[in-house]
Amino acid sequence: MSTVSPASAALIDELVAGNRILFHEKVVDGFGHISVRHDKDPTKFLLSRHRAPGLVTAEDLVTHDFDGNPLDNRDGSRLYGERFIHGEIYRARPEVMSVVHCHAPQLIPFGATRTALRPLYHMSGFLAEGVPIFEIREAAGMTDMLIRSSALGVALARSLGDKPMVLMRGHGATMVGVSIAQAVYRSIYAALNAALQMEAMRLGEPIYLEREEGRLAMLINDGAVDRAWALWRQEAMGK
Amino acid sequence: MSTVSPASAALIDELVAGNRILFHEKVVDGFGHISVRHDKDPTKFLLSRHRAPGLVTAEDLVTHDFDGNPLDNRDGSRLYGERFIHGEIYRARPEVMSVVHCHAPQLIPFGATRTALRPLYHMSGFLAEGVPIFEIREAAGMTDMLIRSSALGVALARSLGDKPMVLMRGHGATMVGVSIAQAVYRSIYAALNAALQMEAMRLGEPIYLEREEGRLAMLINDGAVDRAWALWRQEAMGK
Amino acid sequence: MSTVSPASAALIDELVAGNRILFHEKVVDGFGHISVRHDKDPTKFLLSRHRAPGLVTAEDLVTHDFDGNPLDNRDGSRLYGERFIHGEIYRARPEVMSVVHCHAPQLIPFGATRTALRPLYHMSGFLAEGVPIFEIREAAGMTDMLIRSSALGVALARSLGDKPMVLMRGHGATMVGVSIAQAVYRSIYAALNAALQMEAMRLGEPIYLEREEGRLAMLINDGAVDRAWALWRQEAMGK
Amino acid sequence: MSTVSPASAALIDELVAGNRILFHEKVVDGFGHISVRHDKDPTKFLLSRHRAPGLVTAEDLVTHDFDGNPLDNRDGSRLYGERFIHGEIYRARPEVMSVVHCHAPQLIPFGATRTALRPLYHMSGFLAEGVPIFEIREAAGMTDMLIRSSALGVALARSLGDKPMVLMRGHGATMVGVSIAQAVYRSIYAALNAALQMEAMRLGEPIYLEREEGRLAMLINDGAVDRAWALWRQEAMGK
Repeated sequence: MSTVSPASAALIDELVAGNRILFHEKVVDGFGHISVRHDKDPTKFLLSRHRAPGLVTAEDLVTHDFDGNPLDNRDGSRLYGERFIHGEIYRARPEVMSVVHCHAPQLIPFGATRTALRPLYHMSGFLAEGVPIFEIREAAGMTDMLIRSSALGVALARSLGDKPMVLMRGHGATMVGVSIAQAVYRSIYAALNAALQMEAMRLGEPIYLEREEGRLAMLINDGAVDRAWALWRQEAMGK
Repeated sequence: MSTVSPASAALIDELVAGNRILFHEKVVDGFGHISVRHDKDPTKFLLSRHRAPGLVTAEDLVTHDFDGNPLDNRDGSRLYGERFIHGEIYRARPEVMSVVHCHAPQLIPFGATRTALRPLYHMSGFLAEGVPIFEIREAAGMTDMLIRSSALGVALARSLGDKPMVLMRGHGATMVGVSIAQAVYRSIYAALNAALQMEAMRLGEPIYLEREEGRLAMLINDGAVDRAWALWRQEAMGK
Repeated sequence: MSTVSPASAALIDELVAGNRILFHEKVVDGFGHISVRHDKDPTKFLLSRHRAPGLVTAEDLVTHDFDGNPLDNRDGSRLYGERFIHGEIYRARPEVMSVVHCHAPQLIPFGATRTALRPLYHMSGFLAEGVPIFEIREAAGMTDMLIRSSALGVALARSLGDKPMVLMRGHGATMVGVSIAQAVYRSIYAALNAALQMEAMRLGEPIYLEREEGRLAMLINDGAVDRAWALWRQEAMGK
Repeated sequence: MSTVSPASAALIDELVAGNRILFHEKVVDGFGHISVRHDKDPTKFLLSRHRAPGLVTAEDLVTHDFDGNPLDNRDGSRLYGERFIHGEIYRARPEVMSVVHCHAPQLIPFGATRTALRPLYHMSGFLAEGVPIFEIREAAGMTDMLIRSSALGVALARSLGDKPMVLMRGHGATMVGVSIAQAVYRSIYAALNAALQMEAMRLGEPIYLEREEGRLAMLINDGAVDRAWALWRQEAMGK
């Protein structure tokens, strides 16, 4: 067991809130997870042990290295099988501070039909950056669909590239952000945009945001995430 | 800081309720806002500072002039970037007493596909007046989609014209009313009608309300909004 | 003011519960209503005054005659404008003991497109009896869509005929039952069937229940409504 | 009245939780039921008396034999008319420890249109085993659609065969599991997959999980059901 400085109380508090918010906003159900890069050591990240996000408390958080090894899992608790998603993305993307992995229902049809997820309105302007789709068959043939090794984590991180999110065919999606709040925001509005896009496509060919509109909307909205976070937190945690 | 008479307690109470109701009825989420024309000075309006509507209290309300300047924002709180929507509509429409701006999910597909929103039933008879669609590209080319200046507010108000609401492509919608209750009613039933219209269009060509049916239904329903308001208030605020 | 025997406490309690259940189960929102035939005088019925069903208490109930006149509205409270729906159906259908009028969202598209509502599963077997659609234009041309006179009530009751429910184009639906529980049951499952039928029709041509299957399912389910009522009541009223 | 050893307290507690969870997760409403094979006598099973699953307590559980006879129904309470579903499946499938029967709305359109329910993502990998559709007309012609005899129970069990679930045309579905948790998991994710599949089919031809992907995903997910169960239980029962 290596020695690792404890993360700041504020970061831990925010990660617990992120877990609860993702559940309350229906981005995750009993499955899915959110992590944050350690604020004292950028080569580590914090992630709950094997627990539904809606139940996560500060006591459940475990520090992991990029290979998915736990560093302070004193009681040997079971860990998330897919912790490699987080490790390999933090390794590949130094600017990323938080990673969400989810099976949000609205996103599954897009992965399964390879329909491009595109921004229907300013709230999801970040989608204008492009949304790749990860096909695990290309990386490993017939599998249980899960990212349970560093090798698959690397393949997923490569598919994600420099984008805000990646769809995973037959599985779900993974979003990244420069903060927990941004990763949560992107998860919520990617799912909402997916629902709206499915509706709009049945009415006719939608006018999507242009790349430039999406980029400008993303910049301005990133500066207002605190307004939504205060509400999400109140709704999910009562404080 | 100019001197401005305080609005009546009843008006403030109603505006707070309007904020909470719009959130509880899912017309707004962390974003969107509602204002009311000042009852002591018709050249001013009340609007919350930069806060999610579901969290707004009387202490958050700020008096603005039509140019979007705050008149009693004593602590220099951040304001809504889109307060110009409200100011320019109050300037252009003297009979309007309340304005709602929202991103109600059911309305986004109509803006994005330029599908006419039409009244499917008597509850949304006001839609028979016609629902224009504002295209910000015509006013300003590539933007962040937001109404963050008086010039864009003027363009939006012109698009709204003398109608009860305007759809905003890639953004949301703005509704007006002769009272807070009417603006809230129109927001709720415009969104509900949109959901029903999407369903109905898949079953076949709907029979919409005729202009005259819509007008007559609007008049009679406007006289019964108090019945719904009492319920909405109880549900959103417990009183 | 005529003298009218008070209805039994049990009937009043059940009617209040019916109001609350219809709201909790989203059959009604701020609008819509439910009545019951008076158990001491079959030429009268009980209906709330002008109040959202979700807020109705025993104190709100008013005894009406079939012409829609209130008999014990001591304080002259405002009444529902559409009380004539109830009066004329009780007059035309002696076996009917309860009437629900609603704008359940799932039913509106069927009225607006004249799509036949048909039973997709045993829970809504009563739909196999046939669901007429009332077109107010045939009765009265351009209107506010509402049944605000005995003449329109008569036209609606004629359209209903001997069926369990009638759709009203551009307005909503009206269901009847031999008890409050049956009328509530029919309201809930008519709306649910409508939602399922819209989904099923997009997958292909559904196999609907045959008339005989529907009739047999209706008979057996009518004997089990108490199981659902106990749950609905607990959910809506906590008792 | 035969003598029957009482089931273990843990099993009773889990079956009550299963009832409440199925209601909270909207797999059942006032109707539907879940049973468990008796842990002291594999020729018996536990099932609530005639009660909505959302209201079931330990006092409601009755031990039944495979013919549907109650063994400890001391007060002669009314039983579920469809208890034969459970008895005949336990008789035909010795490895099955729990059976769920439901009318989950998302599953009805698949039964009614004979659309194959197929796994869109790893959470519902068990669907790759194949989902038969039971047509009661083939077994018994015109009926009330219900499984109210051992003969119909046998026909249903034959249609189920060795699969995890069977759709019932015009009625609902029945799922089985090697534990209460697995049967509940399959019920929840079969319904969710159905909703997603309907959406995906409108976007284009979905890529479903291959048989092998489904099998591998099923195996790995079966080992993580406890993570979801802890959440479901907390949400449904507060403990």
